[in-house]
Amino acid sequence: MSTYTPTPRTKVRRLPKRAVYDKAGVHAILDEGFICHLGFAVDGQPYVIPTLYARSGEVLYMHGSGASRTLKTLAEGVQVCATVTLMDGFVLARSAFHHSLNYRSVVVLGRARLVSKPAERLEALRTITNHVVSQRWEELRPPNELELKQTLVLALALEEVSAKVRVGPPVDDEEDYASPVWGGVVPIHTRLGAPIADGRVLPDVEPPAPSRLIVGRKRTAATP
Amino acid sequence: MSTYTPTPRTKVRRLPKRAVYDKAGVHAILDEGFICHLGFAVDGQPYVIPTLYARSGEVLYMHGSGASRTLKTLAEGVQVCATVTLMDGFVLARSAFHHSLNYRSVVVLGRARLVSKPAERLEALRTITNHVVSQRWEELRPPNELELKQTLVLALALEEVSAKVRVGPPVDDEEDYASPVWGGVVPIHTRLGAPIADGRVLPDVEPPAPSRLIVGRKRTAATP
Repeated sequence: MSTYTPTPRTKVRRLPKRAVYDKAGVHAILDEGFICHLGFAVDGQPYVIPTLYARSGEVLYMHGSGASRTLKTLAEGVQVCATVTLMDGFVLARSAFHHSLNYRSVVVLGRARLVSKPAERLEALRTITNHVVSQRWEELRPPNELELKQTLVLALALEEVSAKVRVGPPVDDEEDYASPVWGGVVPIHTRLGAPIADGRVLPDVEPPAPSRLIVGRKRTAATP
Repeated sequence: MSTYTPTPRTKVRRLPKRAVYDKAGVHAILDEGFICHLGFAVDGQPYVIPTLYARSGEVLYMHGSGASRTLKTLAEGVQVCATVTLMDGFVLARSAFHHSLNYRSVVVLGRARLVSKPAERLEALRTITNHVVSQRWEELRPPNELELKQTLVLALALEEVSAKVRVGPPVDDEEDYASPVWGGVVPIHTRLGAPIADGRVLPDVEPPAPSRLIVGRKRTAATP
């Protein structure tokens, strides 16, 4: 089994039984999500910004406007943390203390790299687009010069990585099982609604099938 | 209309028309979410950790294990950023460049304060518990001494706050509307699954009604 090596910064200390370092497990979480929360500090103040991402091999790609202060800061190679969280269920216990959440999260530490080579830039944009909607890139006209100039692409290597996962029912104190309080898990699902055309769609042009979208094509039902 | 005053750190520069500073708008986002991504730096390395929260007036409360390295670091009063993101829809445009996400996010900057007074601690825990499941606190036995000792409660004042919201259809380049590509929004919904009892629930004890849970009681259908 191929694994990420825990470092002093990614070793899960609190509830280590929830830790996941194997690459397949980490990749599965990253491939099911589509928004990461990207943390970076400016003058000692941390900022956390949600942004789209996609994984390609051992790299996370992110993109944004070249006019964005955030992206420009990140492109300078500052230290970042990208966190992806999937929420799977509310864990209702018989005491407030044992209430919890079933979730899967990945934390990636490192320095973002500005992607400047045209071929890698295009491939990164294709990866992000098709991560959200399979084969979407192939349906669209290629980006033009101006669009590419306005887009900043970042890569974050999957080197210092850990995941944390909670699954299963609540774990109550033995004496609390005698109390007439419901205990178990209420699953949380992310679902697609019916597509809403924007009013300028040409006749006979259909929306992408739900199974092409990241949420719709989610294969592995998360263990609640 | 009561608003948060933008500071140089919270003023939205990129696409300022998406900015929201009015308190009611910010509160609505915070009250619909239940997980924030909390950013803080240790030795220059940012960390971003997902955690449950709830709002009470102009304060966000968070809690966790007193054994958690994260929480202990935060309790020292370091600068933090708490970000709450609600994802509302995939915006599919006729060019890759104009693809987007409809979302609502809130960013709170400041220093977390360790909540140590017993009455405020209890009230904070009650607020977090009942934010997830209405009136749950009142169904449960009170926390005992040991549980309270093991729980760390933090407060983050809503002072330096901004929100960013994208709604509505894609905005395509005029010439791209002639292309036979579907354009519009595919809504993203968060839904509850059927409750899964843990096998030790006493006879005739029912799970909380879905309308009591944070996701189920979501009132305002997000504008896709």
